[in-house]
Amino acid sequence: MFSFALLATDGAARLGELRTPHGVVQTPAFMPVGTQGSVKAMRQRDLEETGAQIILGNTYHLYLRPGDQLIARRGGLHQFIGWPHPILTDSGGYQVFSLAGRRKIDEQGAEFRSHLDGSVHMLSPESAVDIQARLGSDIAMVLDECLAYPASRDETAQSMERSVRWAARCRAQFAAIRDGARTDVGATNPGQAQFGIVQGGIFQDLRDQSADATMAIGFEGYAIGGLSVGEPIDVMHAVVSDTARVLSPHHARYLMGAGTPEDLVECVARGIDMFDCVLPTRNARNGQLFTSEGRINIKNARYAEDDGPIDPTCGCYTCRTHSRAYLRHLYLAGEMTAGTLNTLHNLTFYLDTMGRIREAISLRTFDKFRQEFLRSASRLSLDS
Amino acid sequence: MFSFALLATDGAARLGELRTPHGVVQTPAFMPVGTQGSVKAMRQRDLEETGAQIILGNTYHLYLRPGDQLIARRGGLHQFIGWPHPILTDSGGYQVFSLAGRRKIDEQGAEFRSHLDGSVHMLSPESAVDIQARLGSDIAMVLDECLAYPASRDETAQSMERSVRWAARCRAQFAAIRDGARTDVGATNPGQAQFGIVQGGIFQDLRDQSADATMAIGFEGYAIGGLSVGEPIDVMHAVVSDTARVLSPHHARYLMGAGTPEDLVECVARGIDMFDCVLPTRNARNGQLFTSEGRINIKNARYAEDDGPIDPTCGCYTCRTHSRAYLRHLYLAGEMTAGTLNTLHNLTFYLDTMGRIREAISLRTFDKFRQEFLRSASRLSLDS
Repeated sequence: MFSFALLATDGAARLGELRTPHGVVQTPAFMPVGTQGSVKAMRQRDLEETGAQIILGNTYHLYLRPGDQLIARRGGLHQFIGWPHPILTDSGGYQVFSLAGRRKIDEQGAEFRSHLDGSVHMLSPESAVDIQARLGSDIAMVLDECLAYPASRDETAQSMERSVRWAARCRAQFAAIRDGARTDVGATNPGQAQFGIVQGGIFQDLRDQSADATMAIGFEGYAIGGLSVGEPIDVMHAVVSDTARVLSPHHARYLMGAGTPEDLVECVARGIDMFDCVLPTRNARNGQLFTSEGRINIKNARYAEDDGPIDPTCGCYTCRTHSRAYLRHLYLAGEMTAGTLNTLHNLTFYLDTMGRIREAISLRTFDKFRQEFLRSASRLSLDS
Repeated sequence: MFSFALLATDGAARLGELRTPHGVVQTPAFMPVGTQGSVKAMRQRDLEETGAQIILGNTYHLYLRPGDQLIARRGGLHQFIGWPHPILTDSGGYQVFSLAGRRKIDEQGAEFRSHLDGSVHMLSPESAVDIQARLGSDIAMVLDECLAYPASRDETAQSMERSVRWAARCRAQFAAIRDGARTDVGATNPGQAQFGIVQGGIFQDLRDQSADATMAIGFEGYAIGGLSVGEPIDVMHAVVSDTARVLSPHHARYLMGAGTPEDLVECVARGIDMFDCVLPTRNARNGQLFTSEGRINIKNARYAEDDGPIDPTCGCYTCRTHSRAYLRHLYLAGEMTAGTLNTLHNLTFYLDTMGRIREAISLRTFDKFRQEFLRSASRLSLDS
């Protein structure tokens, strides 16, 4: 029910296709983030209109509210939220590790206090698998330990080794559910796949060890975790390059939590197939818009009487219908429609960029595309 | 460029058609309220989908931000907000009179302090006409004095007489602009119509005087103002009945600021053609939804695992796509999409109700429709 096919390459850039129980995803792919079962400010049909083929759901948030058991009783996350297309869920680990002062980690897992009501919960490798099985996402992620940046080599090595042990436990639990040994979990998607996560911080030998150990366990795909956490951009690029190089060419590669439009292009150039990031949605709600000529802050006074669209090259509803002057007014007036219209544009920009990337790879003109894209993106960050 | 045609009657209920420079409006009509140039949580295409044929814009808000001059330079309100269909603007009077302690009224007009920055402004009958001429709405309203409820007969009489004098000044200014004597105003819609407003509180003899005096000045349509301000429902109904009866049968009649679905049906039965109210949009954002079987509060625990739509008889996107369980989750999680989906439903319910009203009048079955509608609406206010 799950497969990845590599259709073409252009340098290290890859054109591929993920087949999942809820449909096909063309890669390189960008996944809008739907933390609480909703990509903020978007209805599901708006998302379809942007060209999104897969979205991400957050296990931590959905476990706490409305609860994975409730979602399972509704038939799973796809059914509950009315999104019939592919969904990837994270493991909840990143959110739990971000609860500084509200969580305690040991080999067994992480004990944490809910940000909603202070109630105490336990997230273990096994329970992270169970929750995602009940959510019924098409791609589930293993629970890994997430380190703050910077971290020493020793800390990073120990943490990476624990993540490998957790990955093995996650895979065992996943296999038990898949093979019918654990029907009590109440899984809702028999075709669910599971991705491992490579850790190791900025230490390439640790990354290599992690990649080898994770591939030895064996997953349907592999993610690179622990980047986009504050490290310099050239360090991130180097780790992505060198890690992608040692990962299986026959499996999808997912760079977690990245990034800017430039990051997407640069990391596709280094062999990445999948991305997720809150940047296009969060920035939209703050009035920062991505355009083919750089970023603009719609609240800037220069747009008060600007009758042009956000981006004349964009075909989204917002650009087809409204001027910068109107969008600025909606933003300053605090109208929630500002968030809706801006998000529709930013996601369209991201998804269009992925489409252009895929086209360039298929035409074997990706390097030319990349140079031109980075030139216009850096030409002006108009209002920064 | 502006006309009203009466197509059929059924008792006092009227089926009609308003022709405006931006298209036809079938009456009885409900106008969603777009205070700041946006019906809250709705994009213009969402509004079209609900069946809205005309929306209302608030002169007070648009004058202060982004400014009527800026909107005029953009070509007028239709162009600025991307809504090519009919628009009615209020005069700004109601908002200014609501600024208790921040406004001073005399025969000349109202001096007030902006709720945004405390700056001092003057709204006179003439300037209310000028601002609306620049906004370029299809229907402009005269500036009237709005009394708090309850008010004595003397207060009401004096206020009503001032409103009549202001109406005459408004009409003179409107005529000067329309006839080309005041090109300096910068009007953006040469086919704009102007409605007078009947005042007189709950005193029918004052209502009659006001109606006669306002019709003697002569407008393209007539509104009933000063109701839905806290008076008992049977008083409101009596004033509407008796005032509609003395108004010209050849002009549209607009009941300002009403109301609940039951109010719409009851006031159509008394001869009203047009309505506006924030109820469907505001209540939607607070989780209160209108259904064919009464109102529901989506946050109620009873909907936590309810897989049915808000209203099984509704064909809106929200009802076609999402369960009460998901909508409850979105609301409790504070997702802005809750506001969008709920507003889409509530406005669809209102606009569908108007369509059913029009159909019943054309079939001469309005009284039967009315009885059935009120019976199911009162059957259960499910969660109140």
